[in-house]
Amino acid sequence: MRIDVLTLFPEMFDGPMNSSMMWKARDRGLLTFEAHDIRHGSIDRHRTVDDTPYGGGGGMVLRVDVLDRAVRAVIGDDTPPVIYLSPQGRLLSHDVARELAQHDRLVLLCGHYEGIDERAHDLFITDEISIGDYVLTGGELAAMVVIDAVMRHVPGLLGADGAHERDSHADGLLEGPQYTRPAEYKGLSVPTVLQQGNHAEVAAWRRRQQLRRTWDSRPDLLYKAQLSESDRYNLGTLADEDARAIRTSRT
Amino acid sequence: MRIDVLTLFPEMFDGPMNSSMMWKARDRGLLTFEAHDIRHGSIDRHRTVDDTPYGGGGGMVLRVDVLDRAVRAVIGDDTPPVIYLSPQGRLLSHDVARELAQHDRLVLLCGHYEGIDERAHDLFITDEISIGDYVLTGGELAAMVVIDAVMRHVPGLLGADGAHERDSHADGLLEGPQYTRPAEYKGLSVPTVLQQGNHAEVAAWRRRQQLRRTWDSRPDLLYKAQLSESDRYNLGTLADEDARAIRTSRT
Repeated sequence: MRIDVLTLFPEMFDGPMNSSMMWKARDRGLLTFEAHDIRHGSIDRHRTVDDTPYGGGGGMVLRVDVLDRAVRAVIGDDTPPVIYLSPQGRLLSHDVARELAQHDRLVLLCGHYEGIDERAHDLFITDEISIGDYVLTGGELAAMVVIDAVMRHVPGLLGADGAHERDSHADGLLEGPQYTRPAEYKGLSVPTVLQQGNHAEVAAWRRRQQLRRTWDSRPDLLYKAQLSESDRYNLGTLADEDARAIRTSRT
Repeated sequence: MRIDVLTLFPEMFDGPMNSSMMWKARDRGLLTFEAHDIRHGSIDRHRTVDDTPYGGGGGMVLRVDVLDRAVRAVIGDDTPPVIYLSPQGRLLSHDVARELAQHDRLVLLCGHYEGIDERAHDLFITDEISIGDYVLTGGELAAMVVIDAVMRHVPGLLGADGAHERDSHADGLLEGPQYTRPAEYKGLSVPTVLQQGNHAEVAAWRRRQQLRRTWDSRPDLLYKAQLSESDRYNLGTLADEDARAIRTSRT
């Protein structure tokens, strides 16, 4: 996969794109990455990229002509998805990341200041993605998040086969707790069922922990989760436990 | 504000924490930032930080004793919030970012591999935050996203006063379109109302664009948005327009 980023701060990508999994992806030839400076699309001698908004208001808006030239220089005659990172986009999710991983090339456009001239959407932006309902200084961190989430779905990258399908959200539930050595630390022990290591019992315990955690923290996820008959039965018993706890606390 | 990050990849933070707004925040003395290597919590000669999970399964789990020593070395006798970044946490939002900005110190713990030993939650983790419903290689990018979203709420950082309250999501609506020079580019013009610059008309046009965009892309946000009587009237006319468009397309 080839990913090009257009940004006013190409140097921000140096550390993250050369560490950990991103370094591994590039080292193995699974990812070709380049960060391009939007300023290269500017043709005046001050290298201006932005201007004040029509209609007034604070902040600066990135110019459509500058962006247009910068994007065209990167894509040439190619027609990859050109994705603008912004809080107005569709929300990134496990499924959106998997969908984007099907492309062999992506172009990510990072805005800054108050935003970009709207006409960029008419001319070259094909998709708009938000990583969450909060505001960031620019699209750079959002672009890194998209790249990381997408690359996990590219075959050959994750060490253990299927690791990305064991991930949280792969089946719509949160992950359950994990334990490793030491078996006891500061008076806290690893649960007996995990220490005994009976496969069927461990699997049942883990599934129930996943359901418990999702039920407690993110019940909204249960509407979309892939649940078996036994999951549904377990959720029923969790609801009973909670109801009992509430009744006990009242008496 | 002081922010300490615990990570296996401290070098990932170099670029992002020295660019753009983060550099400005540190330069103005509004942010003291340090990235600490979790390996410093390891006491064996191989600097082991992880081990296989109890109960089997792939991946490696960060050891609770290593994390405990690393966190204690950073916080000493202080009791700041210790926030673990993970897909299991509560979702970051504009409001959560504002809430975190009230603290004068935060400690962010970045996991890697399959996860961390659950007992870390009993011993020192006080909060768990997710930046969205997708999986990342580690908590590093999530930590950077949290820092960026939080710092926008620290007074004195954003150039234009109140810029963070004009942001998308500040009042629960998406931002409307922005335009800047040139007035015409490749046959596309800036809307006349913005070029004329009548303040009241511009304000009304912008509010209607915000409503239109939120209605089209993220209608779920309207349930929580702060809407005036005239917003509600406008939403009614948007619904009428859509109903009319549907009727027209059928005839």
